[in-house]
Amino acid sequence: MTDTALEDLPVTLADVEGARALLAGSILRTPTLPAPRLSRLTGADVWVKYENFQVTASFKERGALVKLSRLAPDEAQRGVVAMSAGNHAQAVAYHGRRLGISTTIVMPETTPQVKVMATEAHGASVILYGDTVSDAFREAERIAKVDGRVFVHPYDDPDVIAGQGSIALEMIEDGPRFDMVVVPIGGGGLISGMAVTFAGHSPETEIIGVEAALYPAMWSALTGQPRPCGGPTLAEGIAVPTAGGNTERVIRRLVPSIILAEESALERSVNALLMHQKTLAEGAGAAGLAALLTEPERFKGKTVGLVVSGGNIDERVLAGILLRELERECRIVSFRLTLMDRPGMLGRISTLIGQLGGNILDVHHSRTFLDVPAKGARLDLTLETRDKLHADVIQKALEEMGLPVQRLGAGTVDW
Amino acid sequence: MTDTALEDLPVTLADVEGARALLAGSILRTPTLPAPRLSRLTGADVWVKYENFQVTASFKERGALVKLSRLAPDEAQRGVVAMSAGNHAQAVAYHGRRLGISTTIVMPETTPQVKVMATEAHGASVILYGDTVSDAFREAERIAKVDGRVFVHPYDDPDVIAGQGSIALEMIEDGPRFDMVVVPIGGGGLISGMAVTFAGHSPETEIIGVEAALYPAMWSALTGQPRPCGGPTLAEGIAVPTAGGNTERVIRRLVPSIILAEESALERSVNALLMHQKTLAEGAGAAGLAALLTEPERFKGKTVGLVVSGGNIDERVLAGILLRELERECRIVSFRLTLMDRPGMLGRISTLIGQLGGNILDVHHSRTFLDVPAKGARLDLTLETRDKLHADVIQKALEEMGLPVQRLGAGTVDW
Repeated sequence: MTDTALEDLPVTLADVEGARALLAGSILRTPTLPAPRLSRLTGADVWVKYENFQVTASFKERGALVKLSRLAPDEAQRGVVAMSAGNHAQAVAYHGRRLGISTTIVMPETTPQVKVMATEAHGASVILYGDTVSDAFREAERIAKVDGRVFVHPYDDPDVIAGQGSIALEMIEDGPRFDMVVVPIGGGGLISGMAVTFAGHSPETEIIGVEAALYPAMWSALTGQPRPCGGPTLAEGIAVPTAGGNTERVIRRLVPSIILAEESALERSVNALLMHQKTLAEGAGAAGLAALLTEPERFKGKTVGLVVSGGNIDERVLAGILLRELERECRIVSFRLTLMDRPGMLGRISTLIGQLGGNILDVHHSRTFLDVPAKGARLDLTLETRDKLHADVIQKALEEMGLPVQRLGAGTVDW
Repeated sequence: MTDTALEDLPVTLADVEGARALLAGSILRTPTLPAPRLSRLTGADVWVKYENFQVTASFKERGALVKLSRLAPDEAQRGVVAMSAGNHAQAVAYHGRRLGISTTIVMPETTPQVKVMATEAHGASVILYGDTVSDAFREAERIAKVDGRVFVHPYDDPDVIAGQGSIALEMIEDGPRFDMVVVPIGGGGLISGMAVTFAGHSPETEIIGVEAALYPAMWSALTGQPRPCGGPTLAEGIAVPTAGGNTERVIRRLVPSIILAEESALERSVNALLMHQKTLAEGAGAAGLAALLTEPERFKGKTVGLVVSGGNIDERVLAGILLRELERECRIVSFRLTLMDRPGMLGRISTLIGQLGGNILDVHHSRTFLDVPAKGARLDLTLETRDKLHADVIQKALEEMGLPVQRLGAGTVDW
């Protein structure tokens, strides 16, 4: 790293160090710890920075608090406005109340009620406006002008970027010497602040970005190969369709590459962080691990830092992820059997499955099977099994009874 | 605390300090952090010690490693034997392999295959024996005699107790001055080591035990009011039917009370640790929080330390806990409707629900409803709703259509 690498960027190392001093005592210094089970999974020496432990469960508090702390007295008096349906909203609301600053948050009308309530619970006034994030954004900017409220940008403000950079200072102090640090990119505020900090203090550490493959806005800007953004992603926290101007400048200079993570990798990463590392990440917060699962060879044998940037995930979505992973591991399997309808058939089948150690969770059959003699019938069974081998043993035994078996659902895919 | 309080106990403060020196560098120094969202939930100032971050995801590594480290060379040569179907098994196996000590683990024949495999994956020989923990225990003692292997007791060994006590040393150094520390009791090794340590270094801190209400073995021993032990508990890690001799002596002297946690409190605590504090606890690991939910007045306004002692929980069980909590919060509700069968009825009902913002997850109806005109029919609907108020609004609207509505499942209980 030459001395000129950090010249002319919107944020300097001194800005990050100043931000950190402002945050001291008001933000949790989250742990940076080795993650031995993720290391075994990936072949890298993985360390995790637990930003999901912040009060509002995301790193967004850092940038928001720096911005709020730097308001002039008359600005603080008039209050602030922000646009966010997620973690930035809660971060601004929480620290606004702590500092006695009035906060107005604009969210799209489609925002789930539970997110509205979580933000109101921190004392913000929430305004629902428009169908899209862009509509809500413009409304927030309009309110800023009309009401004289300072607009707290979710990522493209130098104070916000500097605040997020404090995470890197803590990782450098608390962790080992990192070969690589993988950072999720939405608007790019987090990675920009961290990249400036590592460039200054640990220039040998490579900063790698990760975006949801459905929202490759920064990747498109940097590569000049525009790809469409859209679709329902598990990582809604980084589903940002346009790159920030300041963040793009920093990333272009300091981040050599961005990995695009598919939904399946994001989903497996949420599951692995939870079941292996015992920590709850939202989709965006698991994106760093998803990058390792996407390009494993690149990270093998390296010392890699991951920022679990947030932990706000819906319980229903989480329960679905757990169950789908069980299907992938063949610990839940579904069989569709075609039967010749004979008395006692269901009894014979369920006895056999029980003898082989399978546990029947769910049975669906046509009424004809039990009530009306007929030539054939269908039986859909969902079983608990130990693993793929066990599921195969049970399938084979059923086939040896003369029953054709079709495997249903995700359990049919080997990965 | 008088100087005599620690006299004649099987473990001394010096033993704990010696154990800690042995463990340094081989055991993760887990974080002790404030838990602001649990504080809001309980009204106490709650701090959490994250023992679920250990490699095998429980505190059991500490005691097991102290015991293994203190073997004489010829004992280490011959190897060890232990009895456990859970965290102690993995702890002994993992550190046995690290130290090059052969490990044999006896488990009851009823042990789930996934636990057998997890232990074998750490290099142990697993022997399945007998129907109960007591049978397996005796077999392990028999193997110890016949094969000359040292028996690594899961809790009642002074080296094991001293190892677990190192947790308290770290909490005293890393945390605030605790008014109370709540510790799960299975056999009592963890609380014994911690109670000796707090008595020595922070005697004003009250150590409170918590047992699963289904397995009140230590409570029975101390109160002299024997209660039965048994039943399927979420906290299988502390489902120990007999108190240890050494641990009972320590607890009788240093632990003034034990709280019994019902299954519902354990279940809500696993959910709260996950969704509020973003960390995965098994049932036994969540028992400390369950004690706060059981006797909230006792802890309000106090600075309380909780040990999340382990994080090994089955994915299926966890998914069930998440979904049941959604039902308790009326974020999933089930209605049973009694219909007069008229054409278009299902369409009218689902349109109404959609207009009110409910999302239909599941529909069950009798075939007669769609196919055969008849006097009445039943329709079971499962919906996503925002909260109890929202569910009530939808129920009232259905009733105003002239449809009697019955609420099904856990969502009917207000707690």
